[in-house]
Amino acid sequence: MKGHFITFEGGEGSGKTTQLARLGHDLLGRGYSVVQTREPGGTKIGDAIRQLILHPPSVDDDIDPMAELFLYLASRAQHIREIILPALQAGKIVLCDRFTDATIIYQGKARGLSEKVVAQMARYAAQTGNQKGVLLKPDLTLLLDLEVKVGIARLKGRKEINRIDKETFQFHESVRQGYLSLAKRNPRRIHVINTNTRLQAVSEEIREVVDALLS
Amino acid sequence: MKGHFITFEGGEGSGKTTQLARLGHDLLGRGYSVVQTREPGGTKIGDAIRQLILHPPSVDDDIDPMAELFLYLASRAQHIREIILPALQAGKIVLCDRFTDATIIYQGKARGLSEKVVAQMARYAAQTGNQKGVLLKPDLTLLLDLEVKVGIARLKGRKEINRIDKETFQFHESVRQGYLSLAKRNPRRIHVINTNTRLQAVSEEIREVVDALLS
Repeated sequence: MKGHFITFEGGEGSGKTTQLARLGHDLLGRGYSVVQTREPGGTKIGDAIRQLILHPPSVDDDIDPMAELFLYLASRAQHIREIILPALQAGKIVLCDRFTDATIIYQGKARGLSEKVVAQMARYAAQTGNQKGVLLKPDLTLLLDLEVKVGIARLKGRKEINRIDKETFQFHESVRQGYLSLAKRNPRRIHVINTNTRLQAVSEEIREVVDALLS
Repeated sequence: MKGHFITFEGGEGSGKTTQLARLGHDLLGRGYSVVQTREPGGTKIGDAIRQLILHPPSVDDDIDPMAELFLYLASRAQHIREIILPALQAGKIVLCDRFTDATIIYQGKARGLSEKVVAQMARYAAQTGNQKGVLLKPDLTLLLDLEVKVGIARLKGRKEINRIDKETFQFHESVRQGYLSLAKRNPRRIHVINTNTRLQAVSEEIREVVDALLS
């Protein structure tokens, strides 16, 4: 694949969305061709799925963990086929807010589904659009890390609070520890970036890591 | 499980929906406790997913086959957890319009995805709500069989034509042959019922098969 696939991961309030936008702006300003996208979502079908996951129509928000997993994977399959693969084939830089790592952490670790089953299904989803069964993997993953209590405090300033944001402290702590452990097992791909510092300092650290990939 | 799980399968226009309703009416009249449901759908989340699959929001209806598969499985997981398992545990008869067989046939055979992958994922979905990983399988499946040209002719009288109905003759023929082959491999569970005859004759044949299960 000619392009570069860069994903942003991290817990709620870790600054993914802000930093992805800043990196995108910076890269565009330097003449790169960039696609900025997110999961769940990124396509019309994906956006409808995102709405279903974050604001389910059932009165008690009681979405089954397996149903939730399949919805995330449906969004991903459409996203890969419609947005990510064509952009990479055209040589663009794809910046994606959450990808397979998020599925492993949120559905496999924090929701208590079998990690083996979740990992197997996530692998199937990452083969979408590839006849030879090759997995789509990020070239670089930026894990934005932040203490849970600081992340939750940041959320309080937001207008829209969704179903995931409302999870318990324990859930968010399990997400954080899961991500850090994943980073330890994938040290070449996943870069851990502490975001409990000035916005500009975080952006600079991200830029250095990305420049190393692009050069 | 105390109840009975009966599924209806077959191509478009085969009469599943009508015959399911007639059987449900008959069983209720004889004092049985019956739940009539369908896939995709059967729950609020499932109905929203059904809408997405049959009338996708993207302009060209270009839904990726893997995304479609995951959407069906999301609907199924929610359906099993919220509707089917509680009804069976309460000793009811569950009549369900399409289930795992439809996934194997429509996504595995007719869409050209790897049958092995589809079957594996359908097995995961059928384990929803069961900690021990036991698969939920129908006690009885009624395969309503009809020549494709007759089924398509029946569709023409309908008000609502969806994305699946508009598939090619070849697609529907592949669905029919796939179902018949599945029935040959599962002769004890799947009963093939020719529906190119009077409605009442079909209902009577179904009633005989169901009575044999219930007695």
